[in-house]
Amino acid sequence: MSLLIVGSLALDTIETSKGSVSEVPGGSTSYCSLAASYFSNPQIVGVVGEDFPDSVISLFEDHHIDLEGMQTVAGKTFRWGGRYAGNFDDRVTLFTELNVFETFKPRLPDNYKKASHVLLANIHPGLQHEVLNQLESEAFVILDTMNLWIETAHEDLISLMARVNMLVINEEESKMLTGKTNHKQAAAELRKMGPEWIIIKKGQHGALLFYEDRVFSVPGLILDEVIDPTGAGDTFVGALAGYLDQSQDHSFDNVKLAVVFGSVLASFCVQNFSVEGITYLKEEDLEERYDEFVVMSQF
Amino acid sequence: MSLLIVGSLALDTIETSKGSVSEVPGGSTSYCSLAASYFSNPQIVGVVGEDFPDSVISLFEDHHIDLEGMQTVAGKTFRWGGRYAGNFDDRVTLFTELNVFETFKPRLPDNYKKASHVLLANIHPGLQHEVLNQLESEAFVILDTMNLWIETAHEDLISLMARVNMLVINEEESKMLTGKTNHKQAAAELRKMGPEWIIIKKGQHGALLFYEDRVFSVPGLILDEVIDPTGAGDTFVGALAGYLDQSQDHSFDNVKLAVVFGSVLASFCVQNFSVEGITYLKEEDLEERYDEFVVMSQF
Repeated sequence: MSLLIVGSLALDTIETSKGSVSEVPGGSTSYCSLAASYFSNPQIVGVVGEDFPDSVISLFEDHHIDLEGMQTVAGKTFRWGGRYAGNFDDRVTLFTELNVFETFKPRLPDNYKKASHVLLANIHPGLQHEVLNQLESEAFVILDTMNLWIETAHEDLISLMARVNMLVINEEESKMLTGKTNHKQAAAELRKMGPEWIIIKKGQHGALLFYEDRVFSVPGLILDEVIDPTGAGDTFVGALAGYLDQSQDHSFDNVKLAVVFGSVLASFCVQNFSVEGITYLKEEDLEERYDEFVVMSQF
Repeated sequence: MSLLIVGSLALDTIETSKGSVSEVPGGSTSYCSLAASYFSNPQIVGVVGEDFPDSVISLFEDHHIDLEGMQTVAGKTFRWGGRYAGNFDDRVTLFTELNVFETFKPRLPDNYKKASHVLLANIHPGLQHEVLNQLESEAFVILDTMNLWIETAHEDLISLMARVNMLVINEEESKMLTGKTNHKQAAAELRKMGPEWIIIKKGQHGALLFYEDRVFSVPGLILDEVIDPTGAGDTFVGALAGYLDQSQDHSFDNVKLAVVFGSVLASFCVQNFSVEGITYLKEEDLEERYDEFVVMSQF
């Protein structure tokens, strides 16, 4: 088993109704790889500047994340700032400073090229293509994307979809790509574009998994309080990828479980700022939270 | 076992992106009692005008609905007209003609007064109080309401909540009543107002059941097509009430099942106009749809 994750590494500044933080670990790869680390030992590819904190490097190492593919180059790390409305329904981007990310080209170390699972976390579809071009294995490929690429890199994204096994997308993006608001119809259209597996994320309402003629619905956990939803989607797909890599089992029943563990990790993520909620969790923490999902949805 | 349902009986005119119908059976009691009839023999209290179609009376009789408490008076039946936006997210009321409903006073026949379950379907909270005042039994009371009464009959509604066992409410109404967008916090506030059981309906995203420190989430069924969402909420609570009346079991596990069967009937409701989707269903139809909920949510 081996899981390759390629995406962004960033320092975030976040404001929510519950407080604010600045220069904290962010980017799709940070969330994805920390979440995946509870199940597998992810190998990451990404770029940071010389100002990337040693404390974050240590955090990744503590979580047995393979950093051979992480390039440190002259300049500043990618920075993002965002502010959430009181109810978390709306997010405003305050600034985006690409910095070293502007010229990033993913380069896979040789021992990454035979990965059995690849998670193309949220970055430009052109870069995601380049990752697949370097692979020497028949990997199970999971694709995450965002509205920006649907609008600005549509052709790259469409050709990429034909190369992946699973697409993870939110409701709004699914509607943008297919024109369908009905989830079943949208999933059918998306499957025609390539991926056999479609996951439509519904935020606090959970997620839907589509495969052949089957659907699985996982609820969003009902929490006392949400502190910061940043990275919840990345955390979900990271844990899902880690679970699949650990189990090497793509049966519908096992992918259901991967979706549940994705939701377990995502529920921890939103309970604190940045990646704080998903670091140094114990096995008992995951089991307890899993049991809450069982009580909540099994009848 | 006996289930009393009090609400409105109407003739509806409905426009959706899938077509339109006029002068079709509507009102909360029509949906609630037809849905409940698959589990129990509901007794209904309501009023219609002399123009209420015999065909609808026959439909109710075919479904073993007790019509002793249905008053037929001089004048026209309550009429409602509505139009849905393409994606069913928004509904515009085109007209509301109260007609005979304007002077309606619920009168319970003697053999209704010892009901073990009472469903106060959506009507003015003042009338819902009058129903409870006539009861001679310690019934399990389920309350449905709407945004209109939260705005225009707030005090009546608040005093009513102290008299009921279960409140069924949608997300928007729950926020109106409590000021909370977090479902867990909202449910805690609502429970303080009286009802031990709280159900928050989330439309296509299903529903949440809160009791003591427990939560159960039922998904919305993923359908190929929605034709007309009118009455889906009434159908949900009607089937739920019928299931509870049939089983006479208020354990958390059994109320979970009642919620699932509420969702089963609601999923049939939206697949056709008016009550068409929930008439003359066979036991196998319900079992098949129940199995779809199992596949969709059990892991």
